[in-house]
Amino acid sequence: MNANVNESELDKLNTALEEGAFRQIRYTLNKTLRPSEVAHLIEKSPPKERRLLWSMIHKDIEADVLQELGDDVKSEILSKMNTSEVLAISESLEPDDLADMMQQLPETVMHELLRSMDHQNRERLEKVLSYPEDTAGGLMNTDTITIRPDITIEAALRYLRRHAELPDMTDCLFVVSRKDTYIGSLPLTRMLVSDPSSTVREMMVTDKPPIQADMEDTLVAKLFEQEDLVSAPVVDENNQLLGRITIDDVVDVIREDADHSLMSMAGLDEDEDTFAPIMKTTRRRAVWLGINLITAFMASAVIGLFEETIGKVVALAVLMPIVASMGGIAGSQVLTLMIRGQALGHVERSNARWLLNREMIVGLLNGLLWALVVAVIAVLWFQDMTIGIIIACAIMINLFAAALAGTLLPILLKTWGIDPALAGSVLLTTITDVVGFFAFLGLATFFYS
Amino acid sequence: MNANVNESELDKLNTALEEGAFRQIRYTLNKTLRPSEVAHLIEKSPPKERRLLWSMIHKDIEADVLQELGDDVKSEILSKMNTSEVLAISESLEPDDLADMMQQLPETVMHELLRSMDHQNRERLEKVLSYPEDTAGGLMNTDTITIRPDITIEAALRYLRRHAELPDMTDCLFVVSRKDTYIGSLPLTRMLVSDPSSTVREMMVTDKPPIQADMEDTLVAKLFEQEDLVSAPVVDENNQLLGRITIDDVVDVIREDADHSLMSMAGLDEDEDTFAPIMKTTRRRAVWLGINLITAFMASAVIGLFEETIGKVVALAVLMPIVASMGGIAGSQVLTLMIRGQALGHVERSNARWLLNREMIVGLLNGLLWALVVAVIAVLWFQDMTIGIIIACAIMINLFAAALAGTLLPILLKTWGIDPALAGSVLLTTITDVVGFFAFLGLATFFYS
Repeated sequence: MNANVNESELDKLNTALEEGAFRQIRYTLNKTLRPSEVAHLIEKSPPKERRLLWSMIHKDIEADVLQELGDDVKSEILSKMNTSEVLAISESLEPDDLADMMQQLPETVMHELLRSMDHQNRERLEKVLSYPEDTAGGLMNTDTITIRPDITIEAALRYLRRHAELPDMTDCLFVVSRKDTYIGSLPLTRMLVSDPSSTVREMMVTDKPPIQADMEDTLVAKLFEQEDLVSAPVVDENNQLLGRITIDDVVDVIREDADHSLMSMAGLDEDEDTFAPIMKTTRRRAVWLGINLITAFMASAVIGLFEETIGKVVALAVLMPIVASMGGIAGSQVLTLMIRGQALGHVERSNARWLLNREMIVGLLNGLLWALVVAVIAVLWFQDMTIGIIIACAIMINLFAAALAGTLLPILLKTWGIDPALAGSVLLTTITDVVGFFAFLGLATFFYS
Repeated sequence: MNANVNESELDKLNTALEEGAFRQIRYTLNKTLRPSEVAHLIEKSPPKERRLLWSMIHKDIEADVLQELGDDVKSEILSKMNTSEVLAISESLEPDDLADMMQQLPETVMHELLRSMDHQNRERLEKVLSYPEDTAGGLMNTDTITIRPDITIEAALRYLRRHAELPDMTDCLFVVSRKDTYIGSLPLTRMLVSDPSSTVREMMVTDKPPIQADMEDTLVAKLFEQEDLVSAPVVDENNQLLGRITIDDVVDVIREDADHSLMSMAGLDEDEDTFAPIMKTTRRRAVWLGINLITAFMASAVIGLFEETIGKVVALAVLMPIVASMGGIAGSQVLTLMIRGQALGHVERSNARWLLNREMIVGLLNGLLWALVVAVIAVLWFQDMTIGIIIACAIMINLFAAALAGTLLPILLKTWGIDPALAGSVLLTTITDVVGFFAFLGLATFFYS
């Protein structure tokens, strides 16, 4: 498929929206585009257009579109539906998506929904709901195809042919005992090249242990990446087969996981809707600005200690942001590298010491280099040798402090159970600002008094 | 599989490394761990341990381990091999991985390698090499299984059974004409539920157009995500089947793509090795510090314009970092949101105006709120009404400028073909520093003169 064609199709749709050509839009939404493309279009539209688009979607594809939407957008749309609309949509969702949706519904609607389901579906849903959203159990679906180990491949093929269709992303059948205990997997690719008279037991694969339902979703993602899996069985603590996880849901975990570091470092939520309404956005941003204001005042307080010195040598006020800024930049490089390393599972206790040593040496070397450069410029600018010496020392101290803070903060924060991506950058700039101003103005007070 | 078991296995290995228990390590590396786990272990080890670990790996698994490594680590290891070692490894690599590796080899080794390959393999490799690394063609493998449309499902099943095994991640067969023109796909799941006497033509799927070889890899990834694909056919401009792309390679693209924004915003490369050697790290970091130093000096120059005013009212020097810092924080929130929006394909010309309006209003509202808070604190701190009015105005101006810059910079940079994630943060802080200091000190000069 040529994605450019789609892009221009979406552009056309935008023009149509502006011109109010609703019949054309309705046709495109329901006949030309796939649910995933409709969802993409809704996500990149401002709130008013979003409501308009949603209202033009046919009931039949509402559920498909809904489950392609991001959490933030999804809950916005769900919050505007009445109970019967929610019920109608829930019928065509898979258990894992339904479980996700449940968590965004008001209590009353949720109970209504559970009551309206038939026994089998409610049981399936409750199985998924009984595990936290960010575990293998919360990620799994229950649409497994199981076979017994003692039948022949030929019988298994006949059994499959009795199905009208197989679930999407079925790349293997799960071999279970009479009591649903997981025994092994039979990849379809293996089944297709097997001698039909051999048994499932002979052909099945048992070297890949099943996933425990309480495994963290990020670990599940790592496993899928390392083993190049398409689907994997999920079992409980008694090795009973509960369901399966498929790569499409794992890709969502990987994407969210990777977005998390980027967004958190700017104090944003990874689910943050690009087109969130103004008041919601203002409120969320205000909190982050408030937190950062406290750290800014701490830096100001440090400067306040040296008012007298600044009054005597105003050049200090001109140069002091350079010291703080160089420290902040150097520190955030280390911090970002460490946070990415933690996400990839590269950074842990056993290599922390090596990383700290490396970063301290890098900090010292870059400190030396840039201290020299800045000192020369400062001396030429203000025709004052002393200020050159002071700023050189301050920059070396601050780049060293930045290396220390950038390396140790993420490790310490993680040990304390605090998200380094969220708290790291605020704490780091506090440290580099305070150390930078204190070193620079402190040295100046010493030299100029 | 329980990943915790693995973690502790790796811990044990680390202890063994420290104790020099080489026999035990050699056994674990070659017998217990999977290639992907060995690669992970190498990636999270410092250089010295890395070389030691690599030297203990058996020749048979070297290629498997190598292709699981990140680009930076891979090229470091390749650079230390001689030609015959490279040749030995290349034999067990798939064309797309081989093509990746080729780009990291010295010219002479590359030619040697091409000469040593047999005709069929060279042809396959050259097919992949003829497309840039970041396109569908560079991402594809040539291990497709093709069938003709006019045979029956039964014949197709017999044909498959003649294979000893099917390539990994084979979820569908590709239906081609006698001249290798792509006609459609036959999912295995569909094949298995079909009446054996029906023809491939009747059962094949044709509603998913094949991927053009020159499609950008990020668009390929989006397509896989939207359509929940496991594999997809790649064709040239004449609709000739060239190969196929599988989800495992797409996951790598998604991961790199997502890492790119995070790392670039700190001036780091997404392939950056967490354990890169000191001199390499120092050099790379120095460049980024140098660029940021220029912007820091621009901010200083602005402050320098107002030396006289600062000399009269030293409180200005104490408070000025607050104005700059609040602007920087507010701006980088907008910038991060925009960069993520661009990566997801949410931000484009048609909705830029809406976003700009939203951000300007959010900037004004938060500007009003925090201007008031800071003003009250400043007045109480310095017992001076004037300084409260000045800082309130400056903060409002700077938060408004931050909203403008945060929204417009990524759009403009992208139009000019510059990576917003890389250049955006430097430019943004330059703007918020310069505007912040200029507004605050400029207003102060006006009020206090």
